[in-house]
Amino acid sequence: MSISRCDLLLRADIIVTQDAQRRIVEGGAVAIDGGTIIEVGPQAELDARWQAERSLDLGRKLVMPGLVNAHTHASMTVFRGVADDLPLMTWLTENIWPVEKALSKEIIHFGALLACAEMIRTGTTCFCDMYLMEAETARAVDEAGIRAVLGEGIFAFPSPAYAKTEDAWPIIEDLHARYKGHGRIRTAIMPHAVYTTTPEILKRSWELAQAHGCIWKTHLSESETETRTSLEQFGRRPLDYLESLGISGSKCVFAHCVDLTPEEMVRMAETGAHVVHCPQSNMKLTSGMARIEDLRRAGVNVCLGTDGAASNNDLNMFLEMNSAALLQKVRTMDPTALNAQAALDMATVNGAKALGWEELGCLEAGKAADLIALDLNQPNMLPLYNPVSHLAYAASGMEVCLTMVNGKILYEHGRYAAMDMDGLAREAVKVARWVKARAHKTN
Amino acid sequence: MSISRCDLLLRADIIVTQDAQRRIVEGGAVAIDGGTIIEVGPQAELDARWQAERSLDLGRKLVMPGLVNAHTHASMTVFRGVADDLPLMTWLTENIWPVEKALSKEIIHFGALLACAEMIRTGTTCFCDMYLMEAETARAVDEAGIRAVLGEGIFAFPSPAYAKTEDAWPIIEDLHARYKGHGRIRTAIMPHAVYTTTPEILKRSWELAQAHGCIWKTHLSESETETRTSLEQFGRRPLDYLESLGISGSKCVFAHCVDLTPEEMVRMAETGAHVVHCPQSNMKLTSGMARIEDLRRAGVNVCLGTDGAASNNDLNMFLEMNSAALLQKVRTMDPTALNAQAALDMATVNGAKALGWEELGCLEAGKAADLIALDLNQPNMLPLYNPVSHLAYAASGMEVCLTMVNGKILYEHGRYAAMDMDGLAREAVKVARWVKARAHKTN
Ligand SMILES: [Zn+2]
Ligand SMILES: [Zn+2]
Repeated sequence: MSISRCDLLLRADIIVTQDAQRRIVEGGAVAIDGGTIIEVGPQAELDARWQAERSLDLGRKLVMPGLVNAHTHASMTVFRGVADDLPLMTWLTENIWPVEKALSKEIIHFGALLACAEMIRTGTTCFCDMYLMEAETARAVDEAGIRAVLGEGIFAFPSPAYAKTEDAWPIIEDLHARYKGHGRIRTAIMPHAVYTTTPEILKRSWELAQAHGCIWKTHLSESETETRTSLEQFGRRPLDYLESLGISGSKCVFAHCVDLTPEEMVRMAETGAHVVHCPQSNMKLTSGMARIEDLRRAGVNVCLGTDGAASNNDLNMFLEMNSAALLQKVRTMDPTALNAQAALDMATVNGAKALGWEELGCLEAGKAADLIALDLNQPNMLPLYNPVSHLAYAASGMEVCLTMVNGKILYEHGRYAAMDMDGLAREAVKVARWVKARAHKTN
Repeated sequence: MSISRCDLLLRADIIVTQDAQRRIVEGGAVAIDGGTIIEVGPQAELDARWQAERSLDLGRKLVMPGLVNAHTHASMTVFRGVADDLPLMTWLTENIWPVEKALSKEIIHFGALLACAEMIRTGTTCFCDMYLMEAETARAVDEAGIRAVLGEGIFAFPSPAYAKTEDAWPIIEDLHARYKGHGRIRTAIMPHAVYTTTPEILKRSWELAQAHGCIWKTHLSESETETRTSLEQFGRRPLDYLESLGISGSKCVFAHCVDLTPEEMVRMAETGAHVVHCPQSNMKLTSGMARIEDLRRAGVNVCLGTDGAASNNDLNMFLEMNSAALLQKVRTMDPTALNAQAALDMATVNGAKALGWEELGCLEAGKAADLIALDLNQPNMLPLYNPVSHLAYAASGMEVCLTMVNGKILYEHGRYAAMDMDGLAREAVKVARWVKARAHKTN
């Protein structure tokens, strides 16, 4: 047996691989070279096979794939808690939209950096983002070292990024061109929703996604109100309307999908569309309880997202797994619904699949070295029977003591490698002052 | 103006007092002497008035009352994650009950210590506990330095603590006598539920509570199944049944109350009964969605509990506040339902009121020095507009960097003053082995 060299050998008491067999290795190791995992298995085997430049003995830790937050609006961290517990339209028209109109590049960049810090701290290594002036989010992602799929939000009305929709297309093309070949950043096409766009915009965005071979993402069927509006405006339910424009297939990623008919679920499964469930946002904004168990039974790939921090109010995927599982149980009144493994799948492999980035979400040879370690000696992780149960039901994200993306450690035991948390905290005070001056009601 | 001495002057950027005015002091201070708060107010005023033996400048922290977990079964931490996602009866009859029958004093004591460690870590300073061999829990509470109201679970069948119910009474009397006058430990009378006791047991337990002047607590109306069983067994719904035995009034604390009629809610308000809402347990065990907004509107004092770690699976009251608020919003489809302040009240002052321990749950002169500090520079706490919003919607408990009970610091920046976490972690491995050997299915 020959010994090969690698950059890093990481050993830990438990490795939750999320591979096809959902293998859990006790006393395991991960060999990493560059940004890629080259082997995962028992420590003794890997020790014999690999000569590592550096080894990291994590001991009583659980190593697992970094979580994939498949739907968020990172820079909305600047609105975290500015206006809660309000009727939806008061919240949007008096508190969010007036401030969004005035957003500057600097504030978008700050909000995205803060979001990256929070996600890195709580174990998310990749997120899918739709917002305004997304080039600033891309810059933050590049600096923070995290991974992301980014899309400029496309609307039929002016955004801080463009005065008219016609001006959005070059911005999108530019973003795409700038990050082509970037290891950690991909771009996608993201019209905001059926009720904030036009048939022409949607068709053009779909053509663009096909030309670039990238994913096409939108908010879909978020509530009964959206369905009603769609029926009034277009004479069709949202999914029918998209299909009538020729938009369907496995490049489609739909956020929310709270208000679907059983027939729509079957159609989504057949066309290979992906659904991002955002339980906390759906509960807080009272969009309703998505029928995730029905979607999963229909064969739809369902993943998980936090939505923006204005409607959550955190970007913590461990808490989102927990909410997803508990909400499905009480909705169906079946305690076996959406079990721990299903919740973990949604937050890892299913997210990777939805984003078309299959090097993510799982620890095995050939996959990206995006992983996190959790401290198993935190009191809420003791005792340990079933690691997957703890990830879905007991963890809160505070157990995350190491976050690695692309083979690089971004966070370890309270310290960020590439982020200045004190600087962000100081900046947050100024940003809060700026937002408060523009939001109508700051409860 | 005279200067008086005190033991400790604690300064912090924000103090959420939870006093009658729900005052929030920016640049505030808390003066503490012995185990008691002697003043709360602006730093400059307190600096001028108090000569402190020791002062603690917390800086960019939020200081608030320690949380009150009004319903748990602390030692059930030993079952955390041993069997999830199972039908209720499989879970109970094959996994929980067979092991509970065999529980030893040592394991009860270990489980309670572990629960105390978790609660101290996540900002709970007082909990209300019902379980078996509660004297062991009391011993753990005494050692851990936390505060608790404890009650031996009373059943009509044998428990590991007693072979027949008749033997339970001296155990209860003994527990009561042993902790009489203990500053941090109180005892209460806790028959398990209407369906696990008899009319005679309930009546005797009620007389005992009246003799001791202590609270009387039980699980009540947890699910429709319980109501059906009660109608079959006693010809009455659970609340009617209790009232028919003469049990009602402000000493009554009822956990769960998922299945209540509007008329029962009014009756609870009139009699002054207290309700402990346990949203995560209710969701996970599919007991249903308690109508907390209706209860609050009816005028019932509603507080919050985690229930045991076997059905949650954590003892984290920050996450429970979040779940309570989000669940009521989606249940009522009203985004203004159970707002952040209401959730915080449930976890603090309302809990104190339910337990009849009014020195707790609020920071003002004369109250117990039970408080916690949260790090406002954690990324999920930035920026800051409304401190109460962050406590209910953004905090996960990981921000807690200091926990004080009765004027003593129990936890500070990752270190416990009186707990050996490494020892507990080692012991947890042995306990897990013991439990696994006895639980039928360990999924
Ligand atoms: Zn969204
Ligand atoms: Zn209980």
